[in-house]
Amino acid sequence: MSEILHQTDPLRALKALPVDRLPEVARELRQVIIETVAKNGGHLASSLGVVELTIALHRAFDSPSDKIVWDVGHQAYAHKLLTGRASRFHTLRQLDGISGFPKCGESPHDCFDVGHSSTSISAALGMAAARDIQGEGNRVVAVIGDGSLTAGLAFEALNQAGHLKKNLIVILNDNEMSISPNVGALSAFFSRQLTSDFFVRMKRETENFLDNVPRIGKDLRRLAKKVEESVKGFLTPGMLFEAFDFDYVGPIDGHKLDELVEMLDNVKRMDGPILVHVLTKKGKGFAPAEQNPSVFHGVGPFDPVSGALSKGAPQPPSYTAVFGETLVELGETDRRLVAITAAMLEGTGLKLFSEHFPERFFDVGIAEQHAVTFAAGLATAGVRPVCAIYSTFLQRAYDNLLHDVCLQNLPVTFALDRSGLVGADGPTHHGVFDLSFLRHLPNLVVMVPRDENQLRHVMATALAHDGPVAYRYPRGNGLGLPAVAPQILPMGRGEILREGRDGVILAVGSLVAEAVAAAELLATEGVELAVVDPVFVKPLDDSLIVGLVETSGFAVTVEENVLQGGFGSAVLELLAERSVQAKIVRIGLPDRFVEQGSQQELRRRYGLDAAGIRTAIRAAVENK
Amino acid sequence: MSEILHQTDPLRALKALPVDRLPEVARELRQVIIETVAKNGGHLASSLGVVELTIALHRAFDSPSDKIVWDVGHQAYAHKLLTGRASRFHTLRQLDGISGFPKCGESPHDCFDVGHSSTSISAALGMAAARDIQGEGNRVVAVIGDGSLTAGLAFEALNQAGHLKKNLIVILNDNEMSISPNVGALSAFFSRQLTSDFFVRMKRETENFLDNVPRIGKDLRRLAKKVEESVKGFLTPGMLFEAFDFDYVGPIDGHKLDELVEMLDNVKRMDGPILVHVLTKKGKGFAPAEQNPSVFHGVGPFDPVSGALSKGAPQPPSYTAVFGETLVELGETDRRLVAITAAMLEGTGLKLFSEHFPERFFDVGIAEQHAVTFAAGLATAGVRPVCAIYSTFLQRAYDNLLHDVCLQNLPVTFALDRSGLVGADGPTHHGVFDLSFLRHLPNLVVMVPRDENQLRHVMATALAHDGPVAYRYPRGNGLGLPAVAPQILPMGRGEILREGRDGVILAVGSLVAEAVAAAELLATEGVELAVVDPVFVKPLDDSLIVGLVETSGFAVTVEENVLQGGFGSAVLELLAERSVQAKIVRIGLPDRFVEQGSQQELRRRYGLDAAGIRTAIRAAVENK
Repeated sequence: MSEILHQTDPLRALKALPVDRLPEVARELRQVIIETVAKNGGHLASSLGVVELTIALHRAFDSPSDKIVWDVGHQAYAHKLLTGRASRFHTLRQLDGISGFPKCGESPHDCFDVGHSSTSISAALGMAAARDIQGEGNRVVAVIGDGSLTAGLAFEALNQAGHLKKNLIVILNDNEMSISPNVGALSAFFSRQLTSDFFVRMKRETENFLDNVPRIGKDLRRLAKKVEESVKGFLTPGMLFEAFDFDYVGPIDGHKLDELVEMLDNVKRMDGPILVHVLTKKGKGFAPAEQNPSVFHGVGPFDPVSGALSKGAPQPPSYTAVFGETLVELGETDRRLVAITAAMLEGTGLKLFSEHFPERFFDVGIAEQHAVTFAAGLATAGVRPVCAIYSTFLQRAYDNLLHDVCLQNLPVTFALDRSGLVGADGPTHHGVFDLSFLRHLPNLVVMVPRDENQLRHVMATALAHDGPVAYRYPRGNGLGLPAVAPQILPMGRGEILREGRDGVILAVGSLVAEAVAAAELLATEGVELAVVDPVFVKPLDDSLIVGLVETSGFAVTVEENVLQGGFGSAVLELLAERSVQAKIVRIGLPDRFVEQGSQQELRRRYGLDAAGIRTAIRAAVENK
Repeated sequence: MSEILHQTDPLRALKALPVDRLPEVARELRQVIIETVAKNGGHLASSLGVVELTIALHRAFDSPSDKIVWDVGHQAYAHKLLTGRASRFHTLRQLDGISGFPKCGESPHDCFDVGHSSTSISAALGMAAARDIQGEGNRVVAVIGDGSLTAGLAFEALNQAGHLKKNLIVILNDNEMSISPNVGALSAFFSRQLTSDFFVRMKRETENFLDNVPRIGKDLRRLAKKVEESVKGFLTPGMLFEAFDFDYVGPIDGHKLDELVEMLDNVKRMDGPILVHVLTKKGKGFAPAEQNPSVFHGVGPFDPVSGALSKGAPQPPSYTAVFGETLVELGETDRRLVAITAAMLEGTGLKLFSEHFPERFFDVGIAEQHAVTFAAGLATAGVRPVCAIYSTFLQRAYDNLLHDVCLQNLPVTFALDRSGLVGADGPTHHGVFDLSFLRHLPNLVVMVPRDENQLRHVMATALAHDGPVAYRYPRGNGLGLPAVAPQILPMGRGEILREGRDGVILAVGSLVAEAVAAAELLATEGVELAVVDPVFVKPLDDSLIVGLVETSGFAVTVEENVLQGGFGSAVLELLAERSVQAKIVRIGLPDRFVEQGSQQELRRRYGLDAAGIRTAIRAAVENK
């Protein structure tokens, strides 16, 4: 073992090691990463795939003055270990622990906070432009996976980078997959190399051309087209990036440290935008992850030797699973139903649907914007698309929702998985803004099921509605209710779950059960509150809510969303519109980014569990 | 004159005309377009550029069963005239008149509502996929400009289209510019053709290769790289689109009707995704527009013969001009200041800045997402970027604002021009959602200047603040105030503009003047209302607002934004948090998309002018 990770300056120690000892560092890093993720869960396969690349980058460049910008950031574990965070690495992804993603607040070596895909080239180009304005000379390196290149944002950045011609190094970490295997016309590209056939054909074409063109001019166009056709299928990634005015270097074996080190030493002396194509294997060095990179992409605790996933106590099915199964049920009877994912086949639970109805299933790649506008196009033609996109990633498609779907009142359904607090992935991934960015979109119906059976009802309701619908459900398991048949809910109708004379709790989704528990606690203390689940955040059940609040003069709203513009604000707006004056307490997340931690820990910390809700209500009742 | 436009079925008449009479139709279309836009204003240059293409498309395809999807849609005037809207075309862009963009509600020939750029390929691909699911046989054609291809959304769609291999025709309308001349590495591409040099070099390379490679294998990679390098600079648009698995046809002269008709007749018999490259000239057929396509992109009334722009009475400088000039002033003294536009050099008023500080100015192309993340990268390195983006287009970058700027609390400024009602461009362009999508972003400061001098103060305040700031200002002219020096405003401090014992009007931005006028009207009727301009929508001036509302028990909020989640909701949230019970009337835009019309007409229709505000307040006072 090189044992450099726990030294005061591991990067200096790394640079001092002879190249032939670097593989020891790689082994050490892999061991720590595997052992830690086996305990804490995390993004294993991606981080294992870039161990050698990370070592080589930190040998070649001088972080933090040189900037290494990790795209998505779930591959940055080796980077964290090499930059002085080994002693705290056992807290990875835990409450108040080391983040699973780069985080500027954690280390000067993390130069850009990230979690969503495809931002690295844009950010790195900004850093390069700032450097040139300020007359400095540091290097900027973006490391981006081939999957992340599918997103339009990466394309926009490449396009400007080639134009500005700044010194900028983009490392294409090509593992031929993102989270699911990649899709899209370009994905075939990255493993494609020139063959001898190409040269033979090119020679014939050019000879024909030069022999047969008496004068250059009109015939050129026709012949040029012939050559273009002959080139079809022979384009290489090199040519593609040259088209963006990048110099292309590669492909390089991303697990051979000596080659990587030599190549980066050369590259850092080159000027202008450079794309370095590195071939890596997801899960490298841990056989179970190499064999099942999708399973070991983001993984819970497992056995660090066999890779067997730890099984806790049996759990009720997850919301994701209920969604996936119900969508197949609905798809059996309604042939108009089509499902769309943006590179999250397994995560969204759509695998089952894709197997049952391959012709009605579309994986668009990491391209949420296109997913939504594509769905709009489908919907104009009488099809009923369901876009299953995590709440946090739907943020990417806000304008497409507004301008392409809601403006035309098209029947597109948005299934927002991982809404609310998501746990260990932290601030980049919490789905706590959706009620606020959805609620003001005209024509949109917004629903929040409180349990897995209501999710089934909500799905049936969305399919039956002739306009856009969004529904959000949390990460994690349902309540374990026996499944009932999906039924269409009356539009905008809430449900009274509990009666009470002293006021009403209006709670949505994941927090309805907590609200009911809080009401029961309070009842033992002599405060009798009704509990209402409005089910619909938009349209609200106006008459139910207004009636209950007018009667008691006291209402509490409870939501797993930021308080600004969310469900509670909708209630305030309704009451103001109806001139109902009452004491209203809103419980939800505050106006700041929420850290990582288990969902339970975070709900407790932010007062969203039964105890917290009870405390907030008691305080309000005592001040009333 | 062919005089087909006013026939019962102009498309049938068009198809019946011999090809050699089509130029008459083109002349007729141009005449109507020029005369109408000369009166009403509108998007002249783009529409003139595609007159022949539109005729050829409607000859070749059978709309509405075949779908023609116009990107952005500002080029669809000829399409509107050919599809039965000639008799109402004089109402173009007027209140309750013909829309300046395709609008499904207006005609079955408009198959997708549009106004923002780069949605056409996604939408068309959705229509093609729906067609195949339903076993139908219609054709789907997307018409997209070369500028619109800069946006990532178009790239995402191309990538999936090549992968799905559906029958889909994409017409690249290549006029070598979008609204401003195009930028980006790829833009040089579209006019590039193979030259004879290419063939000569290729021949030499391939001969060298074939002569010198004794065995195919290890040497191939090195030689392949040599060829890739030799190909650099010779890639053609054909090759690029072939890389996306599109068949490429073109380039074709987009003003030769006979060639267009013949080509489209061939193309419609081809299978799979096809890209047709058509070269057009913006403003074609109207000399002033050909010479100044930027001026005649979106233009007000002009002389239909000379092209001289109509000059009304002298007007105060526009907010856009004040912004542009002030940014130069601020940039003189603060060298950290950098300006960014997404292909709106003139529209945002940044031309002046780009001339003064070319090294601190960036036009990223139609790429709002990248603009924002690029700005975030700049800001991490100590630079102070100002992104000047129309309110409606910033919708595209919602996640970048949230995830890349606000999460890291980076000092990026967002200057939202065209906020509120924009007038004739209508529902796709009104900037009436920004307060709702900005207000819940943690760390973001949101300001709304009420006049052009306050805009200058707000700009200085943003530059001095060490975190993200957004400010919104309206389309149109300022109040004509003599310019004062920009000064830094105290954070979160509002201003009392008028005292009054009966309640308080809290008004922001463009409607402050209307609110003051309404208060004066009401005073003559015995109702004395204070008027407060909070200036900051976030953070609110808590103590000022709470104090005034507590005293009088009556407040009115006024904003040119939707009522859901906007400024008025912020006031409701504040008052609920402080347990202030009062009668609150919120005045703003309702929960639906607002039609086109002049700003004045729309403000009147929606009760946002002084008279409307007065009426709403009187009704509330009488019910109190």
